[in-house]
Amino acid sequence: MTYSVSLSKLLENIGATEGSKLSVDSNGKTYIGRLMPHHSFSGGDILILKLSSGYNIGIRIYADSEVKVLEPPAPVPKKEAPLEKKKGLPNIVLIGTGGTIASNADNRTGAVRPALSVSDLIEAVPEIRESANISARPFLSLFSENMNVEHWQELAEATAEEINNGADAVMILHGTDTMGYTAAALSFMLGDVPKPVVLVGAQRSPDRPSSDAPSNLIAATRFCAKGGAAGVFVVMHDTLEDDSFAVHIGTRVRKMHTSRRDAFKSINAAPIAFLDEEGKIKFTKKKRDPTTEKAVAKTKMERSVILLQFYPGMDPSLFEGIMMRSKGTVIVGTGLGHVSEEMIPLIKKACDNGSVVVVTSQCLGGMTSLHVYNTGRDMLSAGAISVKDMLPETAYVKLMWALANSKDAEEAKKLMMTPLAEEMGDRRTADV
Amino acid sequence: MTYSVSLSKLLENIGATEGSKLSVDSNGKTYIGRLMPHHSFSGGDILILKLSSGYNIGIRIYADSEVKVLEPPAPVPKKEAPLEKKKGLPNIVLIGTGGTIASNADNRTGAVRPALSVSDLIEAVPEIRESANISARPFLSLFSENMNVEHWQELAEATAEEINNGADAVMILHGTDTMGYTAAALSFMLGDVPKPVVLVGAQRSPDRPSSDAPSNLIAATRFCAKGGAAGVFVVMHDTLEDDSFAVHIGTRVRKMHTSRRDAFKSINAAPIAFLDEEGKIKFTKKKRDPTTEKAVAKTKMERSVILLQFYPGMDPSLFEGIMMRSKGTVIVGTGLGHVSEEMIPLIKKACDNGSVVVVTSQCLGGMTSLHVYNTGRDMLSAGAISVKDMLPETAYVKLMWALANSKDAEEAKKLMMTPLAEEMGDRRTADV
Repeated sequence: MTYSVSLSKLLENIGATEGSKLSVDSNGKTYIGRLMPHHSFSGGDILILKLSSGYNIGIRIYADSEVKVLEPPAPVPKKEAPLEKKKGLPNIVLIGTGGTIASNADNRTGAVRPALSVSDLIEAVPEIRESANISARPFLSLFSENMNVEHWQELAEATAEEINNGADAVMILHGTDTMGYTAAALSFMLGDVPKPVVLVGAQRSPDRPSSDAPSNLIAATRFCAKGGAAGVFVVMHDTLEDDSFAVHIGTRVRKMHTSRRDAFKSINAAPIAFLDEEGKIKFTKKKRDPTTEKAVAKTKMERSVILLQFYPGMDPSLFEGIMMRSKGTVIVGTGLGHVSEEMIPLIKKACDNGSVVVVTSQCLGGMTSLHVYNTGRDMLSAGAISVKDMLPETAYVKLMWALANSKDAEEAKKLMMTPLAEEMGDRRTADV
Repeated sequence: MTYSVSLSKLLENIGATEGSKLSVDSNGKTYIGRLMPHHSFSGGDILILKLSSGYNIGIRIYADSEVKVLEPPAPVPKKEAPLEKKKGLPNIVLIGTGGTIASNADNRTGAVRPALSVSDLIEAVPEIRESANISARPFLSLFSENMNVEHWQELAEATAEEINNGADAVMILHGTDTMGYTAAALSFMLGDVPKPVVLVGAQRSPDRPSSDAPSNLIAATRFCAKGGAAGVFVVMHDTLEDDSFAVHIGTRVRKMHTSRRDAFKSINAAPIAFLDEEGKIKFTKKKRDPTTEKAVAKTKMERSVILLQFYPGMDPSLFEGIMMRSKGTVIVGTGLGHVSEEMIPLIKKACDNGSVVVVTSQCLGGMTSLHVYNTGRDMLSAGAISVKDMLPETAYVKLMWALANSKDAEEAKKLMMTPLAEEMGDRRTADV
């Protein structure tokens, strides 16, 4: 929905655009604030202002309301001059995709939305230029809940291209909401990538004093520059303070808190390394050394894959249509990977139909196994496979990739059960 | 599927039944083990044996195979005599529902399945009779992945009945897989229940030396007998050792590991109490004292509720049919509760159709909020509500209850946003 004709005309007449500072007299009250983007679902006669308190308010505009422009929007930041390269420092290409780490729009429109350019961010955190030559590759600017499979594919291709053009590392600024999914997608698409590919984000936007954006960015840069580890990783705060940063394996990481700075946790595996506030890196396990091989992006993905969490009372008849239409289903089962006995005939029907049904656990922690209880054995007989301690989200991404890179369902199942990017462990290495 | 006619006849002729110890010569090999129940999906000519190693094996029986009975099944344990009541001790009624805590079938059939009677368990753990008079109410024997809404309703009614018949506490033996869901259901159905209602389970079956069944049962009994706290709780191991047990609030608890003894964790709230190995109870917050009021079970539930985890690439057209047919949908969104912009029109369509759409977070930890980013504001405008830091599973159970106990969707939404059983907190009390 857009503004009503009369309100559109009014805004046009007074020269108000997104980010203009307005004074609005309506219904006997006066409001002063920056004009926000129009909600898709708010009424056509509603203006939304960001007040100086930081709150947004929706104001209904009547025929007798008065709207004045007090200030134009803050100017769009100008493009930076290219940065000079220093000899002897590694070259890191920074790819922006948006997210909180690149959101800084308050000064212009008041909205928190992806707006800050990657070069702005480099300017704002000059420390990152001490350990590397940073160049920015324009890419996307969206919130990560809007990242989709095509974005993963483009990102994998851009990453491989930068590596093959000489980048010593690629750092990806990403919204935290789906960072784990993207990290998993890049892990499978880029395979044995010869350089560090590091995703980094922020839980709090750079314009807030408590922002974790600068410290995460510095830690990620240091790991890219000095870690000497090839692979796809996520670098984020390990603690609430700025004193420890965790380097997570891309297939093993999950956002476990909506707001804390230490929201990202490795599940069923330790982080591969930690950085302290001085940038000292401590590995917890064997790393893969970077090489001068070419990067290859295998980006084919089967889109007909769904993720379903099992719950008591789940009605198989409701989900039959979806499962039968899909080439793959990841079920987030209970405990060892179980579903109710009513769901098992549906699993059999989908498998008999050529679909691949992969079982994970809503516990998140620990190994799945369909060999311990009758329920599990019946699920196995029905055709389901369980994938050890793989995260549900990683299994969803991997199943898309496995189906697109196999000649048939059987081969895809084999791929699912083969560790490709440290996405699954065995009982010996698991945290039991 | 059952056995083929010829195999059924063979088993009948030699007098082999489930649990019989057999010797099988087939295809040149000899196998010795206990006869397991027949899989629903295994072939009609396959026998399944539990070998002495503990592994199961499926053996195809040919016309020339030889099958002999070596031993009959172990006898079914006889019914216990009723236990004598001691004066001055509280009366605890133990309701069995099945699960690992009540599974001990190895000696009879080799299968791990709910088989141990509640009175067997009382006999096996005589310590629990030191602090209370325990009586057993026969109820169900199933694995908790098969618990459904009707079971929750019967369980709430049985619990209220026992309290109203004089029980000082009710202890429910439950499989761990869906214990959190059942605990949440009882929390809403029983409201301000006047006595302790404690769910307890085991991660490892009582016949294993590492079983947590006895120690969990003792801790739960002690909390029922001496805790002096009314409400619905889950008591399970707090650590890997037998030295600390956590008492979780029924709406705040989640199984976070497939196999560890300390799998159960309170999320977004501390456990209300801990017990040490001596049974000393330490509360972390205010408890509600038991009263002599009657227990009331409000068990009405709206079955037309679904739980959907959002994921990148989720195709709204696939889920439109399900959401439009349901009276309520709980979406497990990303981060603060977000979905992709493609999903928002479907939320609006479902809400416009009178459905209630409730948003939670796959982070599990932390508050949801639809007020921070444009995505969230668009979801609010579409009609979705977010429910602070409520667990997705608890929100699913509560939405069924709220819809069945409201006159319309608006009233149900208000109920969803009102804390009823400590299922949601505010920013001040949350772990931030």
